[in-house]
Amino acid sequence: MKIKYPNAKQSYVKTKKKTNLGMLFENAINLSNEYYLINNRAVIHKKPTPIQVVRVDYPKRTKARIIEAYYRNKSTTDYNGVYRGKYIDFEAKETFNLSFDFKHIGLHQINHLKQVDMHGGIAFVLVYFKCKDKIFLMDIKDFDYFYQLSKNQDGKKSISIEIFSEVGVEVNKGYAPMIDYLEAVDNFYFED
Amino acid sequence: MKIKYPNAKQSYVKTKKKTNLGMLFENAINLSNEYYLINNRAVIHKKPTPIQVVRVDYPKRTKARIIEAYYRNKSTTDYNGVYRGKYIDFEAKETFNLSFDFKHIGLHQINHLKQVDMHGGIAFVLVYFKCKDKIFLMDIKDFDYFYQLSKNQDGKKSISIEIFSEVGVEVNKGYAPMIDYLEAVDNFYFED
Repeated sequence: MKIKYPNAKQSYVKTKKKTNLGMLFENAINLSNEYYLINNRAVIHKKPTPIQVVRVDYPKRTKARIIEAYYRNKSTTDYNGVYRGKYIDFEAKETFNLSFDFKHIGLHQINHLKQVDMHGGIAFVLVYFKCKDKIFLMDIKDFDYFYQLSKNQDGKKSISIEIFSEVGVEVNKGYAPMIDYLEAVDNFYFED
Repeated sequence: MKIKYPNAKQSYVKTKKKTNLGMLFENAINLSNEYYLINNRAVIHKKPTPIQVVRVDYPKRTKARIIEAYYRNKSTTDYNGVYRGKYIDFEAKETFNLSFDFKHIGLHQINHLKQVDMHGGIAFVLVYFKCKDKIFLMDIKDFDYFYQLSKNQDGKKSISIEIFSEVGVEVNKGYAPMIDYLEAVDNFYFED
């Protein structure tokens, strides 16, 4: 039986298989961004991983070969771009647990998202709960509210999937895009 | 772990000496972005250089060491962020000549900036003419106009500093920020 998915609009990605659980969350987001770009919906890219290059070898004139380098800490988030004229910025995380632990996100990343929000950008955290196969978007202001609570001595050090489902927006998965987080952005940030 | 707070650097940038010609243009932009961030004016960062990691060694548990990697072509531009609620995206270039040659910018970068513009973002090219010690901002629509002309058989393959001065906006240099390109953005994109 063929199931009609409301968001399976265009031909290009249409032949893609449905989001596989084994597939990396990051890959699925990248493909969704590609879909958004091709379909002229948004320009959102993943930032390259910051690497500190120490030594470079030049075996051929044409190609420099890096022979010593180290991963650096990310100073911001993984994804940013432009959507409906607005700046959009988010960090994507996945977890096997039923709650998202604050130790899995950097303080500098939370601060970066708060700064973005302060300047009028759209800033959120996208969390994939693997065991439930559910993805939620949570605005940085809400996320930070729980983060600040976690600093109290008895404060919870994580946000449960229930809270994500109450305070955040669930993100639909499908064929194309695989992870339609912009639909969730529309619901949360735009009144149409 | 020691955490770097964005405001801890305040004094550092303020005492900086005036833009030195020998200083790298990129460094001056990065310092200006730091100044904008600290002074709560904008959140604009340089994207990391994309590197393809091939082999990683783990001599100690604490630090992975990359022992084979290659530089990849940039798919977008160097800088993006949020300013006055708008998405902002630009590529910075420097030249010793009195005109900027199109061979020094990637077609995919021009296309990326055009896409950003189409989605309501602010997109431009920043060019530093070293011999005249002058910096100009040119909106991507104007830049692309000249780029399209260059495709004609007799079309000029570059944009002269005179055209930059007529069509673009000159960017003031100073102490803090060293390169006040947001002032030029205000003049060109915002009516105040």
